Amino acid sequence: MKMAKAFAPASIGNIGPGFDVLGMAITGLGDTVTAEKNRGRDVVIREIKGGDGTIPLETDRNTAGIAAKEVLKLVKAKHGVDLIIQKNIPGTGLGSSAASAVAAAVAVNALFGNKLDREELIPPCAAAEHSVSGGYFIDNVSASLFGGIIVSHAAQRQAFSIGTIPDLVVVVVTPYHSVLTKISRAVLPDKVPLSLAVSNMAFTATMVAAVAQKNARRFGLAIQDGIVEPARAHLIPGFPDVKAAALKAGALGASISGAGASVFAVTDRKSHAKKIGLAMQKVFQQHGISSVITVSRVDKHGARVLRAR
Amino acid sequence: MKMAKAFAPASIGNIGPGFDVLGMAITGLGDTVTAEKNRGRDVVIREIKGGDGTIPLETDRNTAGIAAKEVLKLVKAKHGVDLIIQKNIPGTGLGSSAASAVAAAVAVNALFGNKLDREELIPPCAAAEHSVSGGYFIDNVSASLFGGIIVSHAAQRQAFSIGTIPDLVVVVVTPYHSVLTKISRAVLPDKVPLSLAVSNMAFTATMVAAVAQKNARRFGLAIQDGIVEPARAHLIPGFPDVKAAALKAGALGASISGAGASVFAVTDRKSHAKKIGLAMQKVFQQHGISSVITVSRVDKHGARVLRAR
Repeated sequence: MKMAKAFAPASIGNIGPGFDVLGMAITGLGDTVTAEKNRGRDVVIREIKGGDGTIPLETDRNTAGIAAKEVLKLVKAKHGVDLIIQKNIPGTGLGSSAASAVAAAVAVNALFGNKLDREELIPPCAAAEHSVSGGYFIDNVSASLFGGIIVSHAAQRQAFSIGTIPDLVVVVVTPYHSVLTKISRAVLPDKVPLSLAVSNMAFTATMVAAVAQKNARRFGLAIQDGIVEPARAHLIPGFPDVKAAALKAGALGASISGAGASVFAVTDRKSHAKKIGLAMQKVFQQHGISSVITVSRVDKHGARVLRAR
Repeated sequence: MKMAKAFAPASIGNIGPGFDVLGMAITGLGDTVTAEKNRGRDVVIREIKGGDGTIPLETDRNTAGIAAKEVLKLVKAKHGVDLIIQKNIPGTGLGSSAASAVAAAVAVNALFGNKLDREELIPPCAAAEHSVSGGYFIDNVSASLFGGIIVSHAAQRQAFSIGTIPDLVVVVVTPYHSVLTKISRAVLPDKVPLSLAVSNMAFTATMVAAVAQKNARRFGLAIQDGIVEPARAHLIPGFPDVKAAALKAGALGASISGAGASVFAVTDRKSHAKKIGLAMQKVFQQHGISSVITVSRVDKHGARVLRAR
């Protein structure tokens, strides 16, 4: 095989209360990576299409490059690869770095005969995320890899998909305002009141149960985070008002997507999605910030090989 | 109607990492309460059968009495009731006070025409638990009421059953050593490291997913609590050794049942249950404490009216 091209969806980490535990792949946004064998032993990022021009081409500073290198090691490849990265995820907070890593890992794995299964691709992708964010978490990479809504335990290196809720509609508003995951993680408290930990745990457990029950309403109403959202709210201009506007417009729940600055809201009524998105966008505008609205559903499939020859 | 008799199963609160969130009704143990209308307006506890003789007959200090009083208020009863309580739950840590409250609430509700649905019986039972323990939690009462494995959010006054895992076998070893819930709650830290909160949240989410997947193995392996178990271990003589013995004998996971002193272990192999129980009992014996072994499964049905006329 000479080339393989793979797609990996964008994702929402945490999904509110489930910090570093829950993640959700979403439809409509994602990165595509084409990997071609080269004559050397290295990973060369040949081109990055799309994106905002800030993503480094240097292999060791690019999550696709790092993940590709790790996969090459694991499959004991005798070739290097050239990568072409097509970005289609706006701003920050939608697992953009994870999607690039996952698409690269899946493409390179396909290029060398799919020796690794999906679970085995988590560590290479997590290593890539770690190197750019400083944290070890796998909610975005496992959502992007497996699809659906996932439960992850980073310290245990474990994650699995629990499926989807067909009725769930996800509205994401991405402001033109970047938040670095490194900074988003640095503002978190070292210790939290036990009562808040119990509350977040109960809401997270409720959300997992709601996925099993295909209950969009229960899922959305449980998006209540007393720990991470309050600590990060100040990093996103106007966040409390954006969230309030989403709820006022009929969203079941809303919170920061991953480390931000994207903000997401959920509803079980497709007809409400546009109104919710516009209400959120309007508030960002009032704070002097332009934004992009994306209306999605849960991506059930996760990363997939688009072409291999 | 003149009398109603109801049964409520014993339960395991927390189930390891899910402090105040997860609960499980178990088969084979439980309390029965008979309620009869009397000529006054009060709740009179006529008799307590079984038990260790320490449970107060005084209505306001007895969880069955308190729950019965609360239900009488809610149904606007024009009669009082006499209660006969039959205890069949050994020691502490198996939701004994909750089962008495639940059985009383269900019996009294039946006696007055089942005006309240199951969800509406949570507050009366929670009030009873609160008055004897000082904490407001509903994991035991909702497990005993609804049956199955439950997810609860005490501060939100919400709980629901997520069903059962048919393969799950639960071994409980109850030492002759009481631990008061009040004391068990007092030893908990006010604040916990965020990393531990995330870990407990991930294990709890995994357990909920495992119930949906009917995966006893995943459920059992996720019974890992880095917050509450370490804080309470010293209240149960020999606990670390009892737990280690359970795991060595083949249990998938083990922890303190509720506030203790009972210790539970789970397995997906019925044939291992006796061995696991005996191994745990032996360690308690080495610490000079006699104990009772109960081999159970998840009680799917929850509290039920046995007779009403």
